[in-house]
Amino acid sequence: MKKEEKARIRAELKALREKLMAQQQEIRAKGLPIIVLVEGWATAGKGSLIAEIISELDPRFYNVVTPIVTPEAEARYPFLYPYAKAIPENGKIMIYDAGWMEDCVRKLMRREITKEEYKKRVRAVNEFERQLHDGGYLILKLFLDISREEQQARIRAFRENYETEWRVSREDLWQHSEYKLFRESYESFMDKTGKLIPWHVLDGEKKNAAALEALRLLNGMVDTALESGRTVGKPFEEDFPLLEMPKLSEVDLSPALTDEEYRALLKKLQKRLGELHNVIYRKKIPVILCYEGWDAAGKGGNIRRIAKPLDPRGFDVMPIASPTPEELHRQYLWRFWTRLPRTGHFCIFDRTWYGRVMVERLEGFCSEDDWKRAYNEINEFERQLTDWGAVVLKFWIHIDQDTQLARFNDRQNTPEKQWKLTEEDWRNREKWPQYEEAIDEMLQKTSTENAPWFIIESNDKKFARIKTLKIVVDELERAVAARL
Amino acid sequence: MKKEEKARIRAELKALREKLMAQQQEIRAKGLPIIVLVEGWATAGKGSLIAEIISELDPRFYNVVTPIVTPEAEARYPFLYPYAKAIPENGKIMIYDAGWMEDCVRKLMRREITKEEYKKRVRAVNEFERQLHDGGYLILKLFLDISREEQQARIRAFRENYETEWRVSREDLWQHSEYKLFRESYESFMDKTGKLIPWHVLDGEKKNAAALEALRLLNGMVDTALESGRTVGKPFEEDFPLLEMPKLSEVDLSPALTDEEYRALLKKLQKRLGELHNVIYRKKIPVILCYEGWDAAGKGGNIRRIAKPLDPRGFDVMPIASPTPEELHRQYLWRFWTRLPRTGHFCIFDRTWYGRVMVERLEGFCSEDDWKRAYNEINEFERQLTDWGAVVLKFWIHIDQDTQLARFNDRQNTPEKQWKLTEEDWRNREKWPQYEEAIDEMLQKTSTENAPWFIIESNDKKFARIKTLKIVVDELERAVAARL
Repeated sequence: MKKEEKARIRAELKALREKLMAQQQEIRAKGLPIIVLVEGWATAGKGSLIAEIISELDPRFYNVVTPIVTPEAEARYPFLYPYAKAIPENGKIMIYDAGWMEDCVRKLMRREITKEEYKKRVRAVNEFERQLHDGGYLILKLFLDISREEQQARIRAFRENYETEWRVSREDLWQHSEYKLFRESYESFMDKTGKLIPWHVLDGEKKNAAALEALRLLNGMVDTALESGRTVGKPFEEDFPLLEMPKLSEVDLSPALTDEEYRALLKKLQKRLGELHNVIYRKKIPVILCYEGWDAAGKGGNIRRIAKPLDPRGFDVMPIASPTPEELHRQYLWRFWTRLPRTGHFCIFDRTWYGRVMVERLEGFCSEDDWKRAYNEINEFERQLTDWGAVVLKFWIHIDQDTQLARFNDRQNTPEKQWKLTEEDWRNREKWPQYEEAIDEMLQKTSTENAPWFIIESNDKKFARIKTLKIVVDELERAVAARL
Repeated sequence: MKKEEKARIRAELKALREKLMAQQQEIRAKGLPIIVLVEGWATAGKGSLIAEIISELDPRFYNVVTPIVTPEAEARYPFLYPYAKAIPENGKIMIYDAGWMEDCVRKLMRREITKEEYKKRVRAVNEFERQLHDGGYLILKLFLDISREEQQARIRAFRENYETEWRVSREDLWQHSEYKLFRESYESFMDKTGKLIPWHVLDGEKKNAAALEALRLLNGMVDTALESGRTVGKPFEEDFPLLEMPKLSEVDLSPALTDEEYRALLKKLQKRLGELHNVIYRKKIPVILCYEGWDAAGKGGNIRRIAKPLDPRGFDVMPIASPTPEELHRQYLWRFWTRLPRTGHFCIFDRTWYGRVMVERLEGFCSEDDWKRAYNEINEFERQLTDWGAVVLKFWIHIDQDTQLARFNDRQNTPEKQWKLTEEDWRNREKWPQYEEAIDEMLQKTSTENAPWFIIESNDKKFARIKTLKIVVDELERAVAARL
């Protein structure tokens, strides 16, 4: 390549980097979140490509993440966990230095996952990307390509001196020896995941040209988004196998237990749950219990009865309040991804991601498209959890309006309970009909075979606690049996 | 033990748990952070003791953490890292299910650390606890004790059935076989770390009595704190070996470079830094660069010149803005503990923990005792970092008032730079003399041999960038040589 040519390219690179630098302010102002996924062959030059992209950027504005998938994390969380945890907040760029593609392909090549499992992961990847895209994330997917011969030459060069030899891992050598198979797998993965968000294959043998192309794509993507504003996806529904659910108005709230019945059953069920926790831990089954319900329905007391027999080392209760700023500025499922339990552990969510289709819907904290899309997104999310091996049980703690009023008054009149009652509770109460409608829709659209809803009659708290405990014990018995 | 006796204890346990439940509201209102460290022998019953403590508590109010020290994390972060990361926010209880004691003792027993290293860890533990205590944290340290015979019996019992055998690890069996040595080590550790915050040894063979004692201690500790309010520590100074530092007013800001000199040196130094990064990575040396300086002194551009030659996979730039709520509600070093680099990585802090003795001091964001204590706390923190193996370099990017004014005006008059200039910058500028006084004191009191300050003359940004690069390269050369 001629000298002038080189100079021309360097000049254009500079111009593009400066343009991106200039775009920073608007990206921040408009709150655009941007994901750049850089995949490619070992020694293809991912590092220097990324260096080109960021060299002029304000460090407050981007991050580079190399999700180190330690065997531990690996084994103990869903495979998308490290990537979901790393999504950028609005107005920032997150650059993934290799990510879910390398992860999936390598595991398949290593035969660490079955073809079946691989298919599920590919589906999960498509769901993950679509959800982010629909949530307004800009996603640029790059694959840095080099030939077998080029890779061989580079490996040789790296290994020639001490300072760089560490850059070539056993894995890389193995990839090189299996170059042909890897190429097929990469291509098939890109083929299966390129429909909604396309892959861009860059020529790793032309360093500057590749950087040029990457920056052009990024600049262009940002321009389009800045002109058209954040594109928010339209509702989309895959038909999940849904369970029949009654309307709340049809639920008979009369069931109750005597103190004697209660005490006897509580003792028996808690004992069994405590024993089961050992097996769950031993079998490394993650357990996710989701609590939703009317204010004053008795969620707290119910949760404590479940938690009591559990080994405190093995469970967490996650109270979900209104999101913190950093949570608010990311896709809404992020704050739940980051709270997932490790395998063998219980996580009890006191309120959940269903806030999206209840309070956020009714209070207008998200757009209509947002909450309408959420039913499907949540079903996908929960399927990813159960595909990972989790037991996911969802409880709607149900009472009627009179019972709520009685409990509100009781709280108001009992000093040590007053903190439990807020103005907001009274406001929510006034919206009972709208909430009931939203809840009915939620129960209809998200009670799946893999992650079912259970309506818990809680006018009598004792009955509610026992029913919940019994469901948990029965479902865990089933899960344990299924994993023998 | 008689039946009535048992009943009495159970009744008292219930009373104490309810008292703690009642204390919750005040603890939250007063924003008291509470740490309960539960150490003890394997099979001593730490789990059930913790279960007793939390069984009536509102889950929004406490957490139980079992810092899983994976070999990876282990090797890649300072040993206090998992514990520092887990400190509770104000108004909450964090219960450590085994912690830094077990960590230190086991490592010594396993000969994974030298006696020398162990001494340093014990010192770090005392510093860590004192800093939290001085910051208003309540710390309760419990050790659950059982005899060799009792442990043997329990291990047998656990191993008799499938559901519980996993609870006995190889480690535990080894501890049992080395019971006598372990006892000596535990006792010596408690002896060395019990001066400021005492250890309470509970009899693990009397389950209820132990729980009773633990709850009594907790209740009492909280009562005292609620009466006397958060106790904040008095300044305390250990004499660290300090380096001579000039006053800012004595610094000659005239040095400058021609464009030719600049370009040549920049190229040379960046090339060398890029090569060094490989060695740093190879030798797993963590590098922490701290930037402080006047507004518009040129921190950003300086940082970019350092970052340019680094492998983006191997460094992070951490811009430190005003703390988020969750950061604000924890000890002030927490948000830096959580941002430490892994070994072999660079972390460049754009503003640092020194905010405590500058902006927080001058704007009254902390008490006088708080910032006066901070010099020593920061020296301890940085010594813990260098003891871990980190290279810690601190740069004060210095300009004079006229230069700042010129740059402010330039920003004001250049549209694409305006975002960089805020009202606050003008306000800070008015406080130049107070800041200068605070900065001089900071430089005098925190420039240690292990973590030195460098004043970077930045009226000429080119000179400043080259000087900083040169210091980084030289210091890294030294570190690399020292680790041959």
